[in-house]
Amino acid sequence: MVNVGILGATGMVGQRFIELLDQHPNFNITALTASQRSAGKRYEDATTWYLDNKMPESVRDIVVVDTDPSQVDDLDIVFSALPSDTAAKVEPEFARSHIVASNASAMRMEDDVPLVIPEVNPEYLDLIEVQQKNRGWDGFIVTNPNCSTIALTLTLKPLYDRFDIKRVYVSTMQAVSGAGYNGVPSMAIVDNLVPFIGEEEEKIETETLHLLGDLEDGVVTPASFGVSASCHRVAVVDGHTEAVFIEMEDPADVEEIESTMADFTGLPQKLDLYSAPKNPVVVRSEENRPQPRMDRNESGGMSVVVGRVRQDVAFNNSFRYVLVGHNTIRGAAGASILNAELINEIL
Amino acid sequence: MVNVGILGATGMVGQRFIELLDQHPNFNITALTASQRSAGKRYEDATTWYLDNKMPESVRDIVVVDTDPSQVDDLDIVFSALPSDTAAKVEPEFARSHIVASNASAMRMEDDVPLVIPEVNPEYLDLIEVQQKNRGWDGFIVTNPNCSTIALTLTLKPLYDRFDIKRVYVSTMQAVSGAGYNGVPSMAIVDNLVPFIGEEEEKIETETLHLLGDLEDGVVTPASFGVSASCHRVAVVDGHTEAVFIEMEDPADVEEIESTMADFTGLPQKLDLYSAPKNPVVVRSEENRPQPRMDRNESGGMSVVVGRVRQDVAFNNSFRYVLVGHNTIRGAAGASILNAELINEIL
Amino acid sequence: MVNVGILGATGMVGQRFIELLDQHPNFNITALTASQRSAGKRYEDATTWYLDNKMPESVRDIVVVDTDPSQVDDLDIVFSALPSDTAAKVEPEFARSHIVASNASAMRMEDDVPLVIPEVNPEYLDLIEVQQKNRGWDGFIVTNPNCSTIALTLTLKPLYDRFDIKRVYVSTMQAVSGAGYNGVPSMAIVDNLVPFIGEEEEKIETETLHLLGDLEDGVVTPASFGVSASCHRVAVVDGHTEAVFIEMEDPADVEEIESTMADFTGLPQKLDLYSAPKNPVVVRSEENRPQPRMDRNESGGMSVVVGRVRQDVAFNNSFRYVLVGHNTIRGAAGASILNAELINEIL
Amino acid sequence: MVNVGILGATGMVGQRFIELLDQHPNFNITALTASQRSAGKRYEDATTWYLDNKMPESVRDIVVVDTDPSQVDDLDIVFSALPSDTAAKVEPEFARSHIVASNASAMRMEDDVPLVIPEVNPEYLDLIEVQQKNRGWDGFIVTNPNCSTIALTLTLKPLYDRFDIKRVYVSTMQAVSGAGYNGVPSMAIVDNLVPFIGEEEEKIETETLHLLGDLEDGVVTPASFGVSASCHRVAVVDGHTEAVFIEMEDPADVEEIESTMADFTGLPQKLDLYSAPKNPVVVRSEENRPQPRMDRNESGGMSVVVGRVRQDVAFNNSFRYVLVGHNTIRGAAGASILNAELINEIL
Repeated sequence: MVNVGILGATGMVGQRFIELLDQHPNFNITALTASQRSAGKRYEDATTWYLDNKMPESVRDIVVVDTDPSQVDDLDIVFSALPSDTAAKVEPEFARSHIVASNASAMRMEDDVPLVIPEVNPEYLDLIEVQQKNRGWDGFIVTNPNCSTIALTLTLKPLYDRFDIKRVYVSTMQAVSGAGYNGVPSMAIVDNLVPFIGEEEEKIETETLHLLGDLEDGVVTPASFGVSASCHRVAVVDGHTEAVFIEMEDPADVEEIESTMADFTGLPQKLDLYSAPKNPVVVRSEENRPQPRMDRNESGGMSVVVGRVRQDVAFNNSFRYVLVGHNTIRGAAGASILNAELINEIL
Repeated sequence: MVNVGILGATGMVGQRFIELLDQHPNFNITALTASQRSAGKRYEDATTWYLDNKMPESVRDIVVVDTDPSQVDDLDIVFSALPSDTAAKVEPEFARSHIVASNASAMRMEDDVPLVIPEVNPEYLDLIEVQQKNRGWDGFIVTNPNCSTIALTLTLKPLYDRFDIKRVYVSTMQAVSGAGYNGVPSMAIVDNLVPFIGEEEEKIETETLHLLGDLEDGVVTPASFGVSASCHRVAVVDGHTEAVFIEMEDPADVEEIESTMADFTGLPQKLDLYSAPKNPVVVRSEENRPQPRMDRNESGGMSVVVGRVRQDVAFNNSFRYVLVGHNTIRGAAGASILNAELINEIL
Repeated sequence: MVNVGILGATGMVGQRFIELLDQHPNFNITALTASQRSAGKRYEDATTWYLDNKMPESVRDIVVVDTDPSQVDDLDIVFSALPSDTAAKVEPEFARSHIVASNASAMRMEDDVPLVIPEVNPEYLDLIEVQQKNRGWDGFIVTNPNCSTIALTLTLKPLYDRFDIKRVYVSTMQAVSGAGYNGVPSMAIVDNLVPFIGEEEEKIETETLHLLGDLEDGVVTPASFGVSASCHRVAVVDGHTEAVFIEMEDPADVEEIESTMADFTGLPQKLDLYSAPKNPVVVRSEENRPQPRMDRNESGGMSVVVGRVRQDVAFNNSFRYVLVGHNTIRGAAGASILNAELINEIL
Repeated sequence: MVNVGILGATGMVGQRFIELLDQHPNFNITALTASQRSAGKRYEDATTWYLDNKMPESVRDIVVVDTDPSQVDDLDIVFSALPSDTAAKVEPEFARSHIVASNASAMRMEDDVPLVIPEVNPEYLDLIEVQQKNRGWDGFIVTNPNCSTIALTLTLKPLYDRFDIKRVYVSTMQAVSGAGYNGVPSMAIVDNLVPFIGEEEEKIETETLHLLGDLEDGVVTPASFGVSASCHRVAVVDGHTEAVFIEMEDPADVEEIESTMADFTGLPQKLDLYSAPKNPVVVRSEENRPQPRMDRNESGGMSVVVGRVRQDVAFNNSFRYVLVGHNTIRGAAGASILNAELINEIL
């Protein structure tokens, strides 16, 4: 068993880490950190638990410590659910001697930090060596993308491998849990929606191309097609829905698009990693799916569900589809855990 | 005063007609029709009133009649809020001797029936003459587009007049009122959304190009750029939100796009029609607007509110914006009324 | 293994029966019935599956039959998720030769039909003998109460056994799933609530007293305190919340009330029935619990969660509390299954 | 015209004050105060406007000042929408030389401060003289009750005058706007409700009896029946719904209860005050009304709408009904304004 800690363990993503790691066959939670206000308390006392499933017995009595490397020991991996500004300061400190699998955005676009979805670009883990050399660390940082980006990129990867993508437009309808428990006031979401999520569009546009790029000589060259996003918050608890429009250079038909996504597997499936879904992308044929409440928990929340693949009327090389992905499982905690499982297996 | 009737007066759009016509300076409601089940009852007894404002006193005692031309007389204009299949049968019967301003989709794409947004293509009213000749009617039918199409096209029209549009992608987040009172079960919309609205995408794609086309020798040639829509139902009572992506042939800048929309006016503004908003498109600068609950009632629900106009990162001839339009006012009853006001003024 | 069938298997409660019975150690689903429209189809094809968990593999290929005893054989128990009017006709036919565990309201208040919550009044099962003699049936019907009543009565039973209850007032905030998938239009529930549920108040008032009554010489004498209910539908998917006010003859203190409920167990716990929760009533101490989304799944949805037990300011023999119970698990399918488990164990 | 100021003008209740006062025939807004962060800015720049109606032109350019009596002059009346802790400090300072009509709870239960609903207990304004003598002020403070209390008490007052009330139980379903814009996270309210509102139950229980009490020799003796409340937050934007159970000493019938409430008028109606609704209580007969979205705007939000008046099955002196009142109009800003109108008329 590998001893793991969770940085920022009391927040919404922190709680998902705990839920997903509780019965994990390889990882054993031995440390939980939070802000100084919570440090010194039992986890149960420090936390307002938000998830539908109950707080696991195994963590209730763990004493929360300050988010500081000196407060933990005997840890192999730390999972980071820290806010971006804290992550920027603290993750490098942990990386001196720990493996950091981070969901925070702070370090994602650093040249020598792998931004990885295991099914998409596991080879970027080669940057670890560069990173350790550059920075003189014994540990390292590996990051996963933003929640909306992960779901989108899992569906684009098989298409990108087979077809020549020219432009991608994506309009998101994102769940309120993505903003944290207090992130979206109910006044903003009852009989309403909010057509703006800070920095979300930029992340989707940048990270997607980065993930589909090429790593050569320690440098990532992003993919070169256009990505344009419009992001919206809607009255859904969990599960991001995305309407995707894709222009390709050459014609294809709907069945090809569907089967290309449905048949997609990657290294986690090959290695049979514990959190790897059998199918990263599940394609449904009903005319009114995917729906977030119905489809977010597909494969324990680790699969993206796609539906309504259809060709444009006027152009046979343009396609549309709708996807749903669980934003705090596949889009956050589950993403970091899958990264850690891959690292644990291959390094 | 012009005597008007409302066909399908007890439903949701029928109620909006009544609300909007109650204090109208030129139109006077003298007949209300509904299905046989309601015929013979006072309107108040026949109707479950759904709107926030109270049922106007003026219609409470009107006895509802069957939707049949023989049941009404002394009517100049009939507004149709009928479902499509009923409209297909009944509207032509009314058109023998009445002006029919219809919100139904049944006759919209008939070659000789004007599909009109007064600010966009008032010249299509020339088809009335063709229609009357073709069909031997003394009256005629004029239709307005689908709710989502109206809002979209009002924003595209000024851009289309000035720039060379190549492709438009639109992803809608539509209010539940658009499906009628019983149209969307709450089980489908609480903590959920539905990524499908029957025939909606087809209507947007077809009607938008038709509205922006050219009428020559009695024949409409639709505009020729590509339109691709993805339609979704969300937990909002009234007000459709649309995320629009637009590719143009040539570069522009955000200020040009914004001012082109903000400065747009058409014939209804010139003629100072009663229901014409001062600005068909209102452009807001806040980063998180438009929002349906906040913006749907702009200019009494007759303006479309646009925000978040922004250029694509990679391509300076690609733009995005978000719009909100009131689906049962500007998108339905108000659209038919504005058509009737224009006809009343110019014919 | 006992072979069981589900009458009305395609609806919302029917689906819960399937979900709960799928892994059941004693019951084996061998027949599914529905209306003639579905008969002859595979269950997967006949059903729009509404639950968050996926349709179990085991039932996908079962061919749905008409709801008629001649269509099934080799069945020991049939679970009824039929609407009341169908149940009134069909359940007696099934009861000639089958055990019918029914969630329908049709037969609940018949003199010789046991209305049972296993923790509350298992002795009412003695009515089975009376029923079989009266009606000449080889099988029999056992019913469970209405969803709101079950949750309320589980909390009242321990109090009733220990204290002298004078009056109970209950105000419910009920989930939309209780009305069936199409029962509540979203127009009625977004930014709104509906303060009326047909016959619900009557059921709570009658059934609660019946359940807490005495069976003597084959006749149930209901409990004699007053119950007064006000029922409301709110924008929650699953889980009924009830605000309970209780007047007792004598003083008590909050701790006594809490411990009396928390310590309550009944025959299902003694017999260790498969679906019996360890604690039928779970008492929480947080000031803002229970909440439906957080607490409806307690003990797999079979426990009622109580919180906010507090004394009235002016009267020390008056108390208030709030409860949450899962309306389609403990309040419907799970209730019938627990009845069947009890019958299977003791008869 | 009377010059008025609004303390705490940028918040939700402050905005309602502005909306309601904008076209007021007697009151003229000349000062707006807020926290130091906003002081010095134009109101339009200092405020995120939350209401459906647009910010009135008349206030956009008013420069917001610090909430301090030295910052304003030429004011006759100040309306207070301050949070309770700020109100406790600042309102007495303003009261030295101004009339303060406050919606804050800070001073409500002070012995010499009138807590008034104009239709219910206008005679409590006699306390003003006591207050001025006690405190040596030239001005004074008048308060209105908590939002839920106002709606409840308006319905109880006519019943209390005619019948002998023994006990009142009330279960509220309150709108999220009552907690301020950021008060209720959407994570707490989507597919959920929260059965707790801090100090709300205590306010209802205390203020209701205080309002229905007797003022003699400068001392209020509260009414002596029992009031017991259970308060819950639900997914509604505006409009509190309350389920009321009332035990009386003697029998009555439903028609008496209904007509007693429907016929109720008070001093504001007699004096024909500008904001006074024709009927403080509107009684509806539909089985499923009142509903918050449908009924909150009755008489511009100044009437309480009652429905479902029904007798208890077992006891003919026990009744139930449901009420809806607009929490930020009749329950807050409108209440303070009506108080000020009464003072302006009679003092």
